[in-house]
Amino acid sequence: MRAAPTQEDIRRQNLGALLRRVHVFGPVSRAQLTAGMGLNRSTIGALTTDLTEAGLVLEEQPRDTGGRGRPSLVVRARSQRVYVLAFGVGVDRLVAARVGLGGVVLDRREIERPDGHFTVEDAVDRLAGFGARLTEAAGAGARCVGAAAAVPAMVDREAGVLHYGPNIGWRSVPFGPMLADAIGRRVILGNDGELGALGEHTRGVAAGYDDVVYIHGDVGIGGGVIAAGRPLGGADGFAAEIGHMVVNPDGRACPCGSHGCWETEIGEAALLRAAGRAGPLGRDAVHAVVDAAARGDKDAEEGLRRVGNWIGIGVANLVNLLNPRMVVFGGTLRMVYPATAAQVRSRVNRTALPSHREHLRLRTSALADDAPLHGAAELAFAALFENPLEFTAS
Amino acid sequence: MRAAPTQEDIRRQNLGALLRRVHVFGPVSRAQLTAGMGLNRSTIGALTTDLTEAGLVLEEQPRDTGGRGRPSLVVRARSQRVYVLAFGVGVDRLVAARVGLGGVVLDRREIERPDGHFTVEDAVDRLAGFGARLTEAAGAGARCVGAAAAVPAMVDREAGVLHYGPNIGWRSVPFGPMLADAIGRRVILGNDGELGALGEHTRGVAAGYDDVVYIHGDVGIGGGVIAAGRPLGGADGFAAEIGHMVVNPDGRACPCGSHGCWETEIGEAALLRAAGRAGPLGRDAVHAVVDAAARGDKDAEEGLRRVGNWIGIGVANLVNLLNPRMVVFGGTLRMVYPATAAQVRSRVNRTALPSHREHLRLRTSALADDAPLHGAAELAFAALFENPLEFTAS
Repeated sequence: MRAAPTQEDIRRQNLGALLRRVHVFGPVSRAQLTAGMGLNRSTIGALTTDLTEAGLVLEEQPRDTGGRGRPSLVVRARSQRVYVLAFGVGVDRLVAARVGLGGVVLDRREIERPDGHFTVEDAVDRLAGFGARLTEAAGAGARCVGAAAAVPAMVDREAGVLHYGPNIGWRSVPFGPMLADAIGRRVILGNDGELGALGEHTRGVAAGYDDVVYIHGDVGIGGGVIAAGRPLGGADGFAAEIGHMVVNPDGRACPCGSHGCWETEIGEAALLRAAGRAGPLGRDAVHAVVDAAARGDKDAEEGLRRVGNWIGIGVANLVNLLNPRMVVFGGTLRMVYPATAAQVRSRVNRTALPSHREHLRLRTSALADDAPLHGAAELAFAALFENPLEFTAS
Repeated sequence: MRAAPTQEDIRRQNLGALLRRVHVFGPVSRAQLTAGMGLNRSTIGALTTDLTEAGLVLEEQPRDTGGRGRPSLVVRARSQRVYVLAFGVGVDRLVAARVGLGGVVLDRREIERPDGHFTVEDAVDRLAGFGARLTEAAGAGARCVGAAAAVPAMVDREAGVLHYGPNIGWRSVPFGPMLADAIGRRVILGNDGELGALGEHTRGVAAGYDDVVYIHGDVGIGGGVIAAGRPLGGADGFAAEIGHMVVNPDGRACPCGSHGCWETEIGEAALLRAAGRAGPLGRDAVHAVVDAAARGDKDAEEGLRRVGNWIGIGVANLVNLLNPRMVVFGGTLRMVYPATAAQVRSRVNRTALPSHREHLRLRTSALADDAPLHGAAELAFAALFENPLEFTAS
């Protein structure tokens, strides 16, 4: 059980909570902070002064005072001055961004390789190159307070080791330390589904929802779960391998060694197969099927209908098991879900318990392909909120 | 976000944490409390004095001092003096117990009705009768600090309403308020699977494990999940309806309206059917199948083999989704699992991801049929740990 907090612990917690509030919800007045945090005015004043002196926030007169007495100062994150580096490894693309305090994407670089994977070394080189250019462009006055990377793989976060990423072909790679060596600062690794969930929960379509399932479609199916407002990690940080939930025990072999995994029924390969198509996977191929169905192509329609039925079965299972308030479709499922919504909803209505679906919302991702990148930024900012002033002292 | 704690909040939290520590881990010395809670000796002394004066704990000289200086006083829960009432509604039985601080079952009453359900009114009458006799037997010096009931149903905990309990045939019953009226104090309701998980996590086979799935076999299949040390509730408190995870989309109709739910493949009816047997359900029928298989009955062996395969598929799904460190088989699965372990493990090895099963333990419940009852006791004690001294003042 935790030790009792000291006065200094409480001050640090309050500084972190205030800064995180400004980061997540945007500019906020001292009066709103006083009401929202349950602290008195003078304490809020002392905390904002500390954060201002540390160069983390600015305090400004509000633009519209409304003419009712002395206006309360507005506290705003110094997004241009305080930032993190967020990296994303996709099956066929690499992306890096400088994300300012407040969650603003200030600068972004991306490279695609539609025909195949990146090797580990190539990915490290290119991401480090992006990182160097993003840092240079930030200017001398700006300070980087963290870095994190989203990868389509199970990761050991403590060690920064990418455990197993079947769809990029990487296994047991110390990707965190490798990228850290290349950019000169620690890089925290996270699973892209888990970070997509965190991104959507913090500043996407699931903001304000405490119980959320995020489903990320790519070559494989990944995901992340927010339970009672927190990411569901599991004993090893490997929770939410939703693509490897068996929905069809008599189904096809999955690269994981099992049969009939959800991924084998709703992944990109399953959609193309169900629509009677061959050729390379990827978002262009998925888009082509959705587009053809919209134009009345019967094979594409049938493919989407079949995949929609399996999406519905898997969603119903997740709903019965986790009782989320919202299910978010991200990655290429952001295209597939709207084209299969009738099928998915019909199946969910037959398969999920009435009590569980009564208040359920099914939504597409608001952050689109950048949901995991936003989640990586949140992961990178987390240490700042643990102890805001430590970062200034250094 | 939470308000900042006052000194009084911190003292109350420390009192609750100390009392809960004694409740969960048993008698403990002041020296151990000082080390374990990260508080200094004088603070621990003040807290234990407060709890002693409130009649919640006793401080005693240790029996074996080992002869090394002045021994540290041992703090012990006053189990006979401070208790809760825990109730359990099963498909074919009702149970009630007086559980002392420290988790000791001091007194226990049970009634079986093998041939059918209890009506709501009958259950309330009989449980209230048990409650009155348990309270009377406790004597005048003992104090009841709470009451809770485990029911095989989805519940709205705030309102105390039993939402839907298919296997007892109850729906939209304000069971909490009804039982409260009958016994003269508030009764908190909880789902029996969720409370079974809480019981096993607090003082059963899963004690010390932060990520646990508990599977409760009865006529239906219920369950509960502990994630990062806390019960997984979901948005409405309906999480872990694991019996209604679809594992066989072409399978039999389930009373829930879906097809091929896990419950239809591994519940008591499925086992009897797979073993070629008819007749009433219940633990005697399950025991007869397990017993027959042990004696070499081929039909019983085949039934257990088939059910074991489906148990394995469902367990693998839960393992891939939730990444628990331990899966606990409770209720009648406590008999079925040992008889199907080879089949279950073989299927889990083929279907769960290697990373997820590397450190996984499959175990039978230690608290047996009383796991939900112990969980109900924990639920009833929770308010005491929120504010230990408030209970004395009253």
